[in-house]
Order: sequence, then structure tokens, then C-alpha cells
Amino acid sequence: MSLHEFEPTTFHLSIGSHEPALRVASGDTVRTWCVDSSGYDRNGEDLTDGGNPMTGPFYVEGAERGDTLSVRLDRVRPNRMRGVSGARIAPNVLNPEFIPEFGYEAARDVWWTLDLEGGTARLEDPPEGLAGLGQLPLDPMVGCFGVAPERGQAISTATSGPHGGNMDYPGFREGVTVFFPVTVEGALFHIGDGHALQGDGEIVGTGIEVSMDVEFTLEVVKGKRIGWPRADDGTFVMAVGNARPVDQAVQHSTTELVALLHEDHGLDYPAVSTLLGQCIRYDVGNVFDPAYTIVAKVEKALLERL
Amino acid sequence: MSLHEFEPTTFHLSIGSHEPALRVASGDTVRTWCVDSSGYDRNGEDLTDGGNPMTGPFYVEGAERGDTLSVRLDRVRPNRMRGVSGARIAPNVLNPEFIPEFGYEAARDVWWTLDLEGGTARLEDPPEGLAGLGQLPLDPMVGCFGVAPERGQAISTATSGPHGGNMDYPGFREGVTVFFPVTVEGALFHIGDGHALQGDGEIVGTGIEVSMDVEFTLEVVKGKRIGWPRADDGTFVMAVGNARPVDQAVQHSTTELVALLHEDHGLDYPAVSTLLGQCIRYDVGNVFDPAYTIVAKVEKALLERL
Amino acid sequence: MSLHEFEPTTFHLSIGSHEPALRVASGDTVRTWCVDSSGYDRNGEDLTDGGNPMTGPFYVEGAERGDTLSVRLDRVRPNRMRGVSGARIAPNVLNPEFIPEFGYEAARDVWWTLDLEGGTARLEDPPEGLAGLGQLPLDPMVGCFGVAPERGQAISTATSGPHGGNMDYPGFREGVTVFFPVTVEGALFHIGDGHALQGDGEIVGTGIEVSMDVEFTLEVVKGKRIGWPRADDGTFVMAVGNARPVDQAVQHSTTELVALLHEDHGLDYPAVSTLLGQCIRYDVGNVFDPAYTIVAKVEKALLERL
Amino acid sequence: MSLHEFEPTTFHLSIGSHEPALRVASGDTVRTWCVDSSGYDRNGEDLTDGGNPMTGPFYVEGAERGDTLSVRLDRVRPNRMRGVSGARIAPNVLNPEFIPEFGYEAARDVWWTLDLEGGTARLEDPPEGLAGLGQLPLDPMVGCFGVAPERGQAISTATSGPHGGNMDYPGFREGVTVFFPVTVEGALFHIGDGHALQGDGEIVGTGIEVSMDVEFTLEVVKGKRIGWPRADDGTFVMAVGNARPVDQAVQHSTTELVALLHEDHGLDYPAVSTLLGQCIRYDVGNVFDPAYTIVAKVEKALLERL
Repeated sequence: MSLHEFEPTTFHLSIGSHEPALRVASGDTVRTWCVDSSGYDRNGEDLTDGGNPMTGPFYVEGAERGDTLSVRLDRVRPNRMRGVSGARIAPNVLNPEFIPEFGYEAARDVWWTLDLEGGTARLEDPPEGLAGLGQLPLDPMVGCFGVAPERGQAISTATSGPHGGNMDYPGFREGVTVFFPVTVEGALFHIGDGHALQGDGEIVGTGIEVSMDVEFTLEVVKGKRIGWPRADDGTFVMAVGNARPVDQAVQHSTTELVALLHEDHGLDYPAVSTLLGQCIRYDVGNVFDPAYTIVAKVEKALLERL
Repeated sequence: MSLHEFEPTTFHLSIGSHEPALRVASGDTVRTWCVDSSGYDRNGEDLTDGGNPMTGPFYVEGAERGDTLSVRLDRVRPNRMRGVSGARIAPNVLNPEFIPEFGYEAARDVWWTLDLEGGTARLEDPPEGLAGLGQLPLDPMVGCFGVAPERGQAISTATSGPHGGNMDYPGFREGVTVFFPVTVEGALFHIGDGHALQGDGEIVGTGIEVSMDVEFTLEVVKGKRIGWPRADDGTFVMAVGNARPVDQAVQHSTTELVALLHEDHGLDYPAVSTLLGQCIRYDVGNVFDPAYTIVAKVEKALLERL
Repeated sequence: MSLHEFEPTTFHLSIGSHEPALRVASGDTVRTWCVDSSGYDRNGEDLTDGGNPMTGPFYVEGAERGDTLSVRLDRVRPNRMRGVSGARIAPNVLNPEFIPEFGYEAARDVWWTLDLEGGTARLEDPPEGLAGLGQLPLDPMVGCFGVAPERGQAISTATSGPHGGNMDYPGFREGVTVFFPVTVEGALFHIGDGHALQGDGEIVGTGIEVSMDVEFTLEVVKGKRIGWPRADDGTFVMAVGNARPVDQAVQHSTTELVALLHEDHGLDYPAVSTLLGQCIRYDVGNVFDPAYTIVAKVEKALLERL
Repeated sequence: MSLHEFEPTTFHLSIGSHEPALRVASGDTVRTWCVDSSGYDRNGEDLTDGGNPMTGPFYVEGAERGDTLSVRLDRVRPNRMRGVSGARIAPNVLNPEFIPEFGYEAARDVWWTLDLEGGTARLEDPPEGLAGLGQLPLDPMVGCFGVAPERGQAISTATSGPHGGNMDYPGFREGVTVFFPVTVEGALFHIGDGHALQGDGEIVGTGIEVSMDVEFTLEVVKGKRIGWPRADDGTFVMAVGNARPVDQAVQHSTTELVALLHEDHGLDYPAVSTLLGQCIRYDVGNVFDPAYTIVAKVEKALLERL
């Protein structure tokens, strides 16, 4: 259970079977940092091409196809005082016939000043009408992370799948543990795309994009086979589906939560149906990226009384 | 601003330009009741065919095409001690290839005892594994309500649209005000399909179905033109989209929330984009009915500081 | 087996349980005409509001819920020398991010001169670049037709469903027989929305819109229960699905074609799968209306050798 | 313009920036062969893992990001006397509520005897009811082919995208020329997944799967930038969209066909709209794979008169 301080020097625009950047044992913790989605670091230096460059991959010893990799997000902290966000709602979340009047010509990015101590963001140059908005509380999250996908694939960090990837779910914040299905030796964990704050859906195509200091603990769950990312935030157990249309992401996340209750809690399908029918909650990750993200979840307190 | 006590005697399985059951003035309150989704009343008597029978329609004087009808849900109370729910997750929310193994043959309904004082529900005959579940807190809501649609249509209460209908959104609870676009003289408001409790998505095809006592205040907002239902629960302003796939419901709800901020709060599109990008929230209504329901919302407190 | 000459005087913008315009016996033929989708007749006279006004409904004696209505399109003939079409591809069939540059401001309708003898259409005032296009061969079709839907509904002629409606499928031309599921006494057949020609998908929101003379034979198939419209054009048997997204229309049409082969040809599911796997064909009806239309079909010659 | 005889020894289950198997000049022709989708060759020998193993990649000298690779399918010939197909319609193309009764337990593959001279296929052991089916004419096609995708990705041959991939479109037969957008040096062309015959949609998850002899001519179109695969079969020009839901594949293919007419034929958007509105045709590639395939096309004869 060592703590590794890791200084990234290369970054990847796909999640795949790239050369490991660091090898760690199951149970080890890594303390490192990520550039922002455009490749800029804490000093505003442009280290690499944009498009969600990943820190890693981290090879976890003992991880094999058919295992699960548990990733506890011990620390997710923006590490500079400026962030940037998109300035127009993406056309794919608006009615097609409304798009022509919405106006995309002059859409420049919007900058925010971050107060890292106080935990707030403030528009540097508010668009007309937002002068009174003042401070928004930060809620830092990881936009894109996951493990190498199956079949030797390398999948763009613009999108997501069973391996994780660019899910842009605000619930992936400090303190949460996320589980990924391992398909290659060493699992090959990648992480990046920090957001200081993000609305549901990532509908302007960004959160408040920022470089981050991160710390996470990687643990192999041997012989535990899952189909899609799962998570535990202390209050809820969650299952993630990544697909288009949203309907299919709903199907993946619901099916994975059914499997979770069936396998981990011994409930057969009638019991699962009766419980989830009245108690399931859905959260919306991104509805902007090539694959959309839906999270199905249920309260742990309910499961504990069973 | 009178209070009308109304005893329904006919019920409708579509929302349309049916003969008004009662005429009220704008600002009046109606106190009445609804059978459950199968047509049973507070005494377990089968009064009418199932499929979300509606109480109403209520003709509101002065309402015309191009106005908005405001409906404040003053009281939404289950009025009997038993409710019923579905027993199998609907196949459309599961992965298609998982359906064959899930098992639909023996799916009987599940009954719940409601403690109306204590505000809880308890399974009468828990499926194996749920004996420990105990009491769930009630959260009563209206599943299906709305106004007569345009073009002389009469639309099944199984589905929904710009006129409202079977949205099955747990956020439509007591205390909330919902706004509908008026397309016919008198607006013709319908209401029914009470749920004592419901998970997001209505994934077993039901909440805990129950007859209800309801009280609501109907008010015409003259000359206020909206495209989709909107709502205000004191904390959030909301816009509703009803469509398949979910992606289109996201488009409708987002576009309507953009319109709301533009029209009611004077924000131009760059300001709307910047605000919603980091502050929008999406809730999931049903993903079971022919049209799915998504609610886009933003905190009123944010709007008040602008 | 009488022939009825019928002069319409009222038109409907929804398909529903409207007052019958004419009562006919099963096996009778009706000779009548339809205004164009905007309500204009053969003389260019504006007889009624636009939006696919329907001629009918025609009450067919003996038709009851659970029967099928067979409609043979004996004659589908444009009856005037001008038709009109949309001038911009609908935004919903273009990539959302391409829409802003596509240009919708100045989109006026486009007029065509029809040579009814020669069976051709020619642009009256070709947009720049299309001067050489010359004559296109006509292929007249019925855009919108069907029977009253279930549950007392009246459904807009802008859309479609199990009852038929606005399917805008170029294969619904003279000589084809279409089958609709009867859900009300008398079936209540409606017809209108003639197109002198139309590309797949109806992607400009119209074909070449024109008033028509039509002749059709209505026959009740007692006790034959179908779920979605079916058709027979002599070469293919077809099953129609109407829904959004297209994926769901694919599901409806495929499932209905499976049912057709199972029920009418006695094939069990393995045989159906093996046959359709290598021999099914899909046609695309409209991808413009609220519900999209897909036609699944298989050659009759293949079925005849079984 | 050399002819290369190439004997493959390695096969890839993803399309990506793999080590070139052969380097050719622009204009060269390659004569080679492909194993079937399960990895079996002409002799029924199992050479490699299943899942659409690719022959290649072929590096075409001079090809660079921003060019187009033209691939003329000179010869597409099954090279053995047996093929195999799936035995159950995939659940994703059936109504979800119909799936439980459809039956997936005992679904074994179905074998066909191919008469390569006569160009027909015959079931070896017809399921009950199909004894009379007799011979089906072959229509050999390439299921999966394309060029390395952007961002260093390697994308599974189970799916498709702008780079091509597993499109399973029956129109990709001998004689057709297909165009792919080049994103890496050398283009890196891959090919495999032969079908002796296939229905639209590939709804049993396969065509008649078979190993093939193929011959193709690769040519670089310098400086020609396209967004999605295009094709020319002598009668039609085509544009391909690969995505889920089908609606998005419709958007991609329509937008690409608009671009084609705009760029290659100098038509502005009103002219494109007027022409395609009445003359576009859509074909359905697969509706089985992770991404679905739609082909938008228009007759070349129409374009030639402009």
C-alpha cells in the first residue's frame, strides 16, 4: 500500500493499451496531476494537444481480464486560479428547428476566476445579464477516466463505453469509488479532464475546465466481473451506461444495476423489480459527447436493511 | 376565487375536447378526487375502465389559445390504505439481449399497505429477499394531467406531449405549480393517475398506484404563450419535454428552459448558455410510456440575484 | 360490391371517431377526391385549413375491433397541373452542428408544372443550378391514410401510429393493397395528402403536394387481428412501423413482419429468422414527421415456394 | 499501377494504426483473400480469433490526413463451398415486449451450401417450413472495411464510424468504388467479413458468412477532404452515416450527401434541397452492430443533366 508521487510527461488522447507510465501494486495510492482538457497545466503552460489528454496509463499488478479495478478518488482538486467554459449550448440538445435562430457565430469561450480556498468560481467578464451572478460554489469532478478497452482497442477520450472514458458525470467527485471492468493485463488506468464545476449534461460541451491535482487508490478485485462502470459514493450504489441514444444508456445502466443487486445482494429479479420500481434514481451525465451517460442508482441504506 | 367541491361521475381515457365536467373562473380552486390508474376508487370499487382514467375536464373561463393555464397542486393525498405496483422491470429499459433471461411469465402485481397518517408504504407479501425492506416514506404525486391538445386531437392518457399527459414525474407533488399551453377555449384541464410513491423512470410501468383526493387552483395567464409544460416548486423553475427517444425529450425541455430564461428573465442566448452550462439540472420522468419525460431545471435563487 | 361516387364537403385534421361521411358495404369501391395537404382542390380553391385534411371518414359495415380493413388503392391520380414542394431539407435530418450554416431564412416553396398525360413534373422556376434538371417522372402516392385509433383517440394527421396516418411512404401507390387494424365499429377510413412524387424520407417536409382523384376498395377481413399496417404490392408483402426514433419503427415493422410470416405462412421463429436474415428488405418512409416510418418487406415469390 | 498478390499472415480485430502488412503506390491493385468473420479460411482452417478479422492494413504511399482514399472493389468472390448464418433475429430489432416469447435458447447457426459457379446458396438442413426455399441467388459483399481512424484510435471491427468499419451494407459489392477519409499517413486500409448474401439490416447478426478472394484498387485523391464514406456504383452516388440511433445515421448520411452535391456539383443549398427532396433514396445497412448504417444516395443520371 505505497503512495506513489508521479510526474506525468506524456499524455494520451485515447484510452488504450499504451505503454504503462507507472506500475503499482493493488492497494497502492497515486498522487499526480492532470492537464486540463485543452492540454494546459497549473501554470497555464500548453504541454500537449487538446481533447482530454490523459495522465497514465497506470499498470496495476495482478489485474487480469475478468477482474474489476476499484478506483477511490481520494483527492480531486483544481490547481490553478482560472478555468474556462463553453459559451453556447450545443446544438444537439436543442430542438433542431430552433438552432438557426440560436446563434453560434460569435461564441467565444468564457473565463472564470477560481477561489480555491473559498471553493467558488466567478465570471471574469460576465456576459450581459449575468453581472449579478456572483460566486458559484465549486464541485470539482473528473470528466474522463477509465481502463483499456477490450480487443486491443484505443478509444478516443472524446467518448465513452464499458471501459469508462469521457462520462462527464458531476457525481464523480472526491470521495467516490468507481469500479471498471478489467479487460487487459494491468488494467491500464487513465485519468484527466478536470472540471471545477459542471451542470448536468455538459450542455455547453465543457464544465469549468481546469487542471487538477489528483490522488487515487487502485485496487484489484480478483474474479469480480462487471459489465459497465459501477460506483459507490457512500450514500448510493450506482451503475453507469454510456451510449446513444440516451435510451440505450438507460438500458445499460439499469441492466447493470439489476446485475449488481442480483449478484452482490442475492436478490432475484422479482425482488429487484419491486425494489427498483419505487426506489431507483437516475442521474444524467453528459448528453454532449458521442456517447451519452446515464447513472442508475439506489440508496445503500435500503440495501442494508434487507 | 371560489372553492368548488366536485364529484366526478364520468372519466376519460384520453385528454381532449370532451364535454366540460365543471366550469370554473380563473383563480378558482377545485376539490375533487381521482380513481386509480385501473379505475378503482377509495373504496376499491371499480368505477370505470383502466388506463389512467381522468377526472374532468375542467373548463376555465377566459382561457383561449395562446394563453397559459397555471395549476397549483394544493393537495395530493392518497385516500385509501392499499396501493399496487408492477412486478417486473419493463423490457424497454433493459438491454435487449438480457430480456430473455429476465423472466416475465409469472409477473403478478405487488400490493402495498399505506399508512396515510404516518406517510409510509409497506409490502403486503414481500417477494423473497425483501422481507427486511420495512416502511418506505410516501411521496405522493400526480402521474397524468394536462389540457386539451391542439387540432381537435384526443390523446391517450397512456402517453404525453406538449399538452402534458402521462408524464409520471415524481416532482409533480403537492405544492408545485405546473403551467400548460392552452390551445382550446376553456383549456379543459384533466387530472388522474395518482402514485403514492414512484421511482424515477416508472420502470415497472407503475408507481404505487392509488386513488387520491386532490385540490388544485386553476388560473389563466392571459397572453402568455409557452411551448411545453413548465413548473415551479419554490426551489427550481422547470421545463418539461415529452418525446421518444429521451434525446428528443432533452431537446424539448432544454429549448423550453432557454425560452423561459430568455422571455421571463430577459437573458440573451450567450448569458443563458453560460448560466445553464454550469447550473442546469435534469430529472428523469418516465422512460416507460410511449413518450418519455425529461425535466430541465435551474435554481430560482440563482435567477433572483441577476 | 357497389361503386360509390362521393363528393367530400367536410375535411378532418385528425384521424378519429368523427361522424361518418359515407357508409359502405364490405367490398364496395369509393371514387372520390382529396384536397392537397394545404387544403386546396383541383381548381386551386382553398376549401379548408391546411395540415393534411382528410376526406372521409368512410364507415365500412360489419367492421369491428379485432378485424382488419383491406384498402386496395385502385386509382391514385393527381388532378391538377401544379404541385408545390418544400425548399429546405428539414433540420432534423441534418447534423445539428451543420444546421446554422445551412440557411433557413429565405426558404420559399417551389412550384412544379405537372404533365398528367405524360406523367412528368418540371420545375417552374428552377433554383440556380437546376435549370438542366428537366422532367422527372411522376410516381403518385398517398401520404396520409388510415382508420380511427383505439381508446377514442383523435390523432393529428401530422403524425402516424398503429392506425396508419401520415406515413409518407412512396410505396403506397396505385395498385397496392394496405391493411389496417380495426379498433372501432365501422373502421372509419380517412384518406388524403397526395404526392405526385416524393423522395425517400420526405426530407423537405413535403413531396410534390397535389390534389388527387382517388378510387379505393374497402373490404373487412373478419377476425383477422394485426398490430400495425401491412401491405401487398404484388411483389412484396410488407409490414409498417411508425415511431421515433427510427430504431423503434424498425422494431415495430420487423416484429409485424415476423407475425405475418408466423400467422399467415405457418413459419415458426427459427424458420422466420433464417428466411428474413438473408431476404428482408427495409424501405424508409418519412423521417420528417413526429413519428417516422419504416417498411419491412419480403418477396412473395419466396413465400410461394415454401 | 502494379498488381500485388498478397498472402495475409496476421489479422486484426480492430481498425487502427497497426503495422502495415504491405505498402503500395496510389493506383496499385491488390489481390488477396480474407478469412470469414470467425477466422476460418477457404479450407475451413481456423487461422485467427473471430470477430471480423481484417486483412491488412495496406499502406498507400502519398496518402495523408485530409486526403481521400478511393477503393474500387474489382473482385469480391466467396472462395469455399459452405457459409454460415445466425438463426435468430437479434433482440434489438424486435419489440422489447415480444422478445420473451421469441425464443433464444436453442438458436444454433445455420449452414448453407454455396454453388460458386451457379451463384446460389442452399440451406444444408432447412429448419421446418423452409424445405421448399431451394436456391437463393448469391450477392457477395464486403461487410467490414475502412481506414485507420483519427486520434491514434484502434476501433473494434464490430462497429463502424467515419473511418468505415463494420457497415454490413449489401451495396458494397463487386464493381463499386468506396471513398474513405484519410486521417493518418498511408491511410492504412483494412478489409474482411465477407458475406455471400445478406438481407438488409443484418438482422440475424450475420449474412451468409464466408471467406473470400478479393481484389481492389487503391488510389489517393490528394487534397479531397470528406467527412464520411462515400461510394459510386455506376448508377448512384452515395454517402454513408454510421451511428446510433438510426436517426443520427440518417443525419450523417444526408449531411454528407448535401456536402457532396455542394462541393462536387456546385449546387447551393436551395438547389440541393429541391433536388434531394424529391429524388433522394435511403438504403439500410446494418441495424445490428453497435453503430447502425444508413446510405443516402441519388442517381448519377440526374446529376449529369445539370
